[in-house]
Amino acid sequence: MPTLSSKGNAMPASPIRKLVPFAENAKKEGKTVYHLNIGQPDIETPKVALDAMHNFDLKVIEYSNSEGIASYRKGLSNYYQKAGIDIKMEDIMITTGGSEALLFAFQTTLNPGEEIIIPEPFYANYNGFAVSSGVKIVPVEASIKDGFALPPIEEFEKLITDKTKGILICNPGNPTGYLYSKDELEKLRDLVKKHDLYFFADEVYREFCYDGAEPHSVMNLEGIDDNIILIDSVSKRYSMCGARIGALISRNKPLMANAMKFAQARLSPPTFGQVASEAALKTPSSYFEEVITEYVERRNILVDGLNKIPGVFCPKPKGAFYCMASLPIKDSDHFCEWILSEFDHNGETVMMAPAGGFYANKALGKNEVRLAYVLNKEALIRSVEILEEALKVYPGRI
Amino acid sequence: MPTLSSKGNAMPASPIRKLVPFAENAKKEGKTVYHLNIGQPDIETPKVALDAMHNFDLKVIEYSNSEGIASYRKGLSNYYQKAGIDIKMEDIMITTGGSEALLFAFQTTLNPGEEIIIPEPFYANYNGFAVSSGVKIVPVEASIKDGFALPPIEEFEKLITDKTKGILICNPGNPTGYLYSKDELEKLRDLVKKHDLYFFADEVYREFCYDGAEPHSVMNLEGIDDNIILIDSVSKRYSMCGARIGALISRNKPLMANAMKFAQARLSPPTFGQVASEAALKTPSSYFEEVITEYVERRNILVDGLNKIPGVFCPKPKGAFYCMASLPIKDSDHFCEWILSEFDHNGETVMMAPAGGFYANKALGKNEVRLAYVLNKEALIRSVEILEEALKVYPGRI
Repeated sequence: MPTLSSKGNAMPASPIRKLVPFAENAKKEGKTVYHLNIGQPDIETPKVALDAMHNFDLKVIEYSNSEGIASYRKGLSNYYQKAGIDIKMEDIMITTGGSEALLFAFQTTLNPGEEIIIPEPFYANYNGFAVSSGVKIVPVEASIKDGFALPPIEEFEKLITDKTKGILICNPGNPTGYLYSKDELEKLRDLVKKHDLYFFADEVYREFCYDGAEPHSVMNLEGIDDNIILIDSVSKRYSMCGARIGALISRNKPLMANAMKFAQARLSPPTFGQVASEAALKTPSSYFEEVITEYVERRNILVDGLNKIPGVFCPKPKGAFYCMASLPIKDSDHFCEWILSEFDHNGETVMMAPAGGFYANKALGKNEVRLAYVLNKEALIRSVEILEEALKVYPGRI
Repeated sequence: MPTLSSKGNAMPASPIRKLVPFAENAKKEGKTVYHLNIGQPDIETPKVALDAMHNFDLKVIEYSNSEGIASYRKGLSNYYQKAGIDIKMEDIMITTGGSEALLFAFQTTLNPGEEIIIPEPFYANYNGFAVSSGVKIVPVEASIKDGFALPPIEEFEKLITDKTKGILICNPGNPTGYLYSKDELEKLRDLVKKHDLYFFADEVYREFCYDGAEPHSVMNLEGIDDNIILIDSVSKRYSMCGARIGALISRNKPLMANAMKFAQARLSPPTFGQVASEAALKTPSSYFEEVITEYVERRNILVDGLNKIPGVFCPKPKGAFYCMASLPIKDSDHFCEWILSEFDHNGETVMMAPAGGFYANKALGKNEVRLAYVLNKEALIRSVEILEEALKVYPGRI
């Protein structure tokens, strides 16, 4: 058998993957499992998007342009303009999910061996795209005690070497839910400008901001037009993760020209998904109001519930639909396995994501878990009860 | 401005891309342009696939499994079994087009600097995936005089070094339309076995075989189960290029396990496209019979017509829907520009793909073009007439 690539061997497996057999087994044993482990919302996709599929009237499912369907790019530009972000159609390339946008961004700007600084905990799949591009992630620790606020800018600056090529943030954040303030973003802007770095920003959760908080886009930071690369996606915004439609956005024209060569090699983003995404731009504002109201209620149930459990601490995030909680345990990998395999409360249990997968520094996050509030309120109330009961009897409790 | 990656700079632009402004300009001037340059069929997508979209009844467009929807993988396994190819569900990973399958195959098996041997002319986008993976393509010349038959196996063997990791073929071939015989494939099998190489086979045109010819899949070659990687796609088979659904297929379990890590990093292939593709498995055989009849008639009109033009030679292919023709010219890049910008016949002209983009050896293919017979018969008859008239007056004719 010929050898496999070193890259393939180095690719990290999904941190949740190893829990899957435990969850499957729990179900086989008749347990109900509440899935707090994934970012797949249960919210319905807007009717206008589904109707675009029902009424799809083309006879040939053709390739679209490699940069995406022109009318959709135009519509997306309007969407940003209305949100106060000046993004022109020519700054936008439609991609196969935010995932491909990130891959194109890395491939277009980073050479193997170069480094990007990312506040941790961070979205675990950034690791995969970094390995795929031969790039090194240099983490800077954000603390649960501060609710995962931006670490002091000096901590970033300390890590800058001649290999540093960029800084990546997710705002609002997965897995933390933290929403960066304008002031925090301007500090990053100044650093990016000083060292002429790329500023990658994953803003796929921008519609999900709570308690009157406003999202600030990196695209509105002045003086670094050529440095900014925005990653966007319809997956969470319209609860259509399966459409696989994202966008790579930059005002840096040579960068977009090179990204276009990667886009041409893979021909085009999905046509059905683009048609649905373009239709989704007509989603009424009442849809988002209802969704936001729902998520705020869910967040409050989950986060307030968690903080009432002795030994548990969970900062209340202002965005996205995740929260990170520290538990009175030593090893969340073990706890998340144990709660699926050895525990139930009235026949029910929960699946959570151990936080280790979101940290590059393997010493961190051992007592933390990520929970997604993508389930209905009753399920969340029960999940908190289950977790409380589990912690009472968990042998590894500290 | 921070520097761009060397990879992004090295990525080849689409060979047809530079002709696009000339074609757009021709249209602005009121010319009709027959597009023989692209592999986008005008054949209608099967009704069963379109109906699956019209009747799509899920309320949330969720991620599918990273390896694809189980029922679709099962259905695809049945499709191969019926075609006499023993492929099990667990050998199949659904990808975002054949493009992603190829990218995963390269990333999983090849280290930067390693080499793959490909008979040329070959599909131009292989270059993009090779650059993307840091891999070197080593071409072996197939001759238009032999209709692009497999070059002597000694020619492959001469090129094998300690960096050679695999051989890639496209069968039936894009851009040649050549269909490899069982004997040719067995010669490659023996070579692959002798040197323990990967055998990548792009068989996306397998349904398009003419004159009673049968496609032979590499999956039916004995003794090299762990070496074979099959690339497939629904794009051409069901005329649904825009669905972006392909498949990576191998019986090599460690390889598929590593490919799965790349698949997880990008979450899932498109849900809509998978639903349409699963429905397309029920396409009646009458659909393919009609399509094959149509393509044979088109091929005969185009190829027979081309061969009647003085100085033109075009082997008659037995598969796919492309042909390569040599013309009495020195520089097909110039000719393809000229025919769009300087020529018309009764207000009409043609767009063709200069063959240079399909050769790694830049000395080859200068007098060749690729033509796709994806237009209706009347358009093809006119295209041949236009080309004949153009060659009569082309200043660069030799």
